[in-house]
Amino acid sequence: MPPSPYQQLENEFKRLYALRSASSLLRWDAVVMMPRGSVEQRGEQLAVLETETHAVLTAPKIARLLDRAAANSSGLDEWQLANLRCMRRDHDHAIAIPHTLISRLAKATAVAEVKWREAKQQSNFKLFAPYLQEVLKLTRDRSQILGQSLQLDPYDALIDEFSPGLTSAEIDPVFASLSQRLPALIQQAIDSQSSESILPLTTKVSIGKQRALAVELMKALGFPFDQGRLDESEHPFTGGISGDIRVTTRFDTNDVLAGLMGVLHETGHAMYSQGLPTNYRGQPVGNDAGMALHESQSLLIEMFVGRSRAFVRYLHSLLANTLNVSGPEWEVDNIYRVLTRVERSAIRVSADELTYPVHVMLRYELERELLAGELQVNDLPEVWNQRMQSRLNVTPASDAEGCLQDIHWSGGAFGYFPSYVIGAIIAAQLVEQLRHDYPALDDDIAAGHFTDLFAWLQKHVHGVGNRLNASELVQGVTSRPLSAAAWLRHVEHKYLE
Amino acid sequence: MPPSPYQQLENEFKRLYALRSASSLLRWDAVVMMPRGSVEQRGEQLAVLETETHAVLTAPKIARLLDRAAANSSGLDEWQLANLRCMRRDHDHAIAIPHTLISRLAKATAVAEVKWREAKQQSNFKLFAPYLQEVLKLTRDRSQILGQSLQLDPYDALIDEFSPGLTSAEIDPVFASLSQRLPALIQQAIDSQSSESILPLTTKVSIGKQRALAVELMKALGFPFDQGRLDESEHPFTGGISGDIRVTTRFDTNDVLAGLMGVLHETGHAMYSQGLPTNYRGQPVGNDAGMALHESQSLLIEMFVGRSRAFVRYLHSLLANTLNVSGPEWEVDNIYRVLTRVERSAIRVSADELTYPVHVMLRYELERELLAGELQVNDLPEVWNQRMQSRLNVTPASDAEGCLQDIHWSGGAFGYFPSYVIGAIIAAQLVEQLRHDYPALDDDIAAGHFTDLFAWLQKHVHGVGNRLNASELVQGVTSRPLSAAAWLRHVEHKYLE
Repeated sequence: MPPSPYQQLENEFKRLYALRSASSLLRWDAVVMMPRGSVEQRGEQLAVLETETHAVLTAPKIARLLDRAAANSSGLDEWQLANLRCMRRDHDHAIAIPHTLISRLAKATAVAEVKWREAKQQSNFKLFAPYLQEVLKLTRDRSQILGQSLQLDPYDALIDEFSPGLTSAEIDPVFASLSQRLPALIQQAIDSQSSESILPLTTKVSIGKQRALAVELMKALGFPFDQGRLDESEHPFTGGISGDIRVTTRFDTNDVLAGLMGVLHETGHAMYSQGLPTNYRGQPVGNDAGMALHESQSLLIEMFVGRSRAFVRYLHSLLANTLNVSGPEWEVDNIYRVLTRVERSAIRVSADELTYPVHVMLRYELERELLAGELQVNDLPEVWNQRMQSRLNVTPASDAEGCLQDIHWSGGAFGYFPSYVIGAIIAAQLVEQLRHDYPALDDDIAAGHFTDLFAWLQKHVHGVGNRLNASELVQGVTSRPLSAAAWLRHVEHKYLE
Repeated sequence: MPPSPYQQLENEFKRLYALRSASSLLRWDAVVMMPRGSVEQRGEQLAVLETETHAVLTAPKIARLLDRAAANSSGLDEWQLANLRCMRRDHDHAIAIPHTLISRLAKATAVAEVKWREAKQQSNFKLFAPYLQEVLKLTRDRSQILGQSLQLDPYDALIDEFSPGLTSAEIDPVFASLSQRLPALIQQAIDSQSSESILPLTTKVSIGKQRALAVELMKALGFPFDQGRLDESEHPFTGGISGDIRVTTRFDTNDVLAGLMGVLHETGHAMYSQGLPTNYRGQPVGNDAGMALHESQSLLIEMFVGRSRAFVRYLHSLLANTLNVSGPEWEVDNIYRVLTRVERSAIRVSADELTYPVHVMLRYELERELLAGELQVNDLPEVWNQRMQSRLNVTPASDAEGCLQDIHWSGGAFGYFPSYVIGAIIAAQLVEQLRHDYPALDDDIAAGHFTDLFAWLQKHVHGVGNRLNASELVQGVTSRPLSAAAWLRHVEHKYLE
């Protein structure tokens, strides 16, 4: 019997997965292993793989098979039907944008990223402005074409690339709740923490020891080192594919906790990738459900597990046993205070759990205004600084600490920022359900037992893959739609009680 | 003006190069970095890339462009004409073999390699025999189809894949000279060395120190660490591509010299790859000229430079300065004796310069007899052991140390072995010319100055790329055809004077 249209599609998408996973490894290697002089050649390799991937995905054959499979879907099970939807989405996204625009954007972003680096180094936005202008113009075109093709609002079409199914209609009320509550919450938390004594953790710990500690922690969390690695890179990230996960982190000899929190965050990402449904590995439905859900998993492990009193009890004994650190600054209470300190600052990536959403909501507003033409690129630094002042009572010392701090826009990644906060929101909703299903959670965390935690996540989140989008998954697991309520309860409990 | 057929071909082959270099990196990663559990997925990625590469290379478009470019070649320069010949050769090799045979061989060799490992571990040839039989049968079919298509003798068609242009008609007289002279030479060398006192070099040196020493040595040789890396692997090899060279080696805490000689050997390979013509990087004419010439470059650095009195003088001071080793065993004469010791043994990879060709010539004979059906697979162990005894006065203790010692045949790599010895032959011929052009060679080596050596190699060998095949290159540089004479002069001088 010849393979059915659906089976033929599975074969084509398996090829696509192999090409994409090769690219993913090449990108990991470029950051972690590659000698500096090979940047250009690697760029060419990735461009060719990208072109091959795009050619496979947009071939007329795929469109025909998608139609034929949809017309003959009666024999398909729930997973296969979901896979077919994911394939259709993947194909629709790829086919919507004309080649010329893809290639113009690839060139514009390649230059803009270089110029962004220069401009940030010299803290001079003017150097970057014309290149951002060009990327913005092309991205606006792209969002309109994509929106038309997907029947979405142009900005929603961009969000949809990073977090399938997520829309500004869902994001706006969440952000409105946060904007309303956060200013007072932040002030109250800072006031309440101001009376606490806090001792700095300045013990120097060698990179070698921190690495060994990180490996021990990752093993305790269940990270399978026979199917993944831990390396170092300037900006921690998790790459590779399910079954070959490449985690990176950064160690600072003067700040052992920062490195460990980075490891927790990335291990959250890694365990999600690793826990994706193996039966559908290589198929679109076997992928993750996008950036917002991915970030929910890293934040769940870093913020909800890692920066909790229970975890600090476990961490305290781990540090005492492996590093032989002692003294009042290494007591449980002090470590917890260090890990939950709230401070207004200009920089997003080092912001604490409570002030972080303010940074993201600012970018969400600004990128929508830029795309809509309501804000001009040249006015960005001033508007950025004004709003940072009014929202967070902080004025960036320079453009480098202001509107030049993030790489995203230079690469055309508009629509990405909201996923960071929606991730936190999802994590909070999931954790409420998790605590309900699993009352012994804190005791297990304090004892360094994470098996049941990850079993729950595997069952309710990781193993679902891309069968449900993030909003559907939250609704399914918690019986509630996406909302800021759980996260607000979480931070009120954590920072004000 | 639309691109000419030749320019279109350059674009297609640039794509091919990107795909092949991506595969090359994935293979390096699989050996050096990849977690064990990802073997299967990596196999799938490589298979898909291989299929894509093959599809690009065998597309009807390429055949049409090759014909049109050949018909309009009047405007092309010498390099472009050579590039066109290389493209044609690449295409002809790829198109000759039917898909079904390629895929049957891929499967048969994948299984045979696994079985070979098992059989070697248990030193039981019978476990491997049926799988070797299958690989042999398919390789025989392949060699006949390829030979017919390339108008070559079937075995020559296999050699041609590894070393373009090399034929058994060239190899046979070389091997005949070696077979005639070597038995007496080996005996004389052993007799002459038996009266020398030799002290074992047993000082333990940590891997970290050996690594630092290896890096220093590679830097002295001119290896560009901004365009390459040094890592460790069980079997040393050089992977990657020009501009991103990945050298691996193995360190033994009890044998610092072995590690350094391995580094010299691989650096010889690496400097060839790195010195290929940058103007034609990514084009077939910009590739190396095959395995025989590649091996000539590694042997030239290891055997002719590294295991020479001049180099040992440099090495002596390097070791004294960096490792603080001293004592009679670390004197120049003793190090030189250790590095040039001749000993009959059963194992090819650890054989010395003088006995090594005997191992290779045995395999050359046997693989031709196997392919011709004159030798049956089941008779291999006995015939192997008989001939090892008669040629080298050594009887392998087991199949593992006999006909199971090499991986090559399990992977279908028949026709590869002669390149090891032809490499040594070419190196000797090149070195005679080099000494003529560059009388200060030994003084510079002893002083640790390698710039002029590599400048000569770059001009006469590395920078030629694939514009000439190995035999043409030797003829061009030395005004003499391939012959064993220079190598025999070299070893007589080195081992008997």
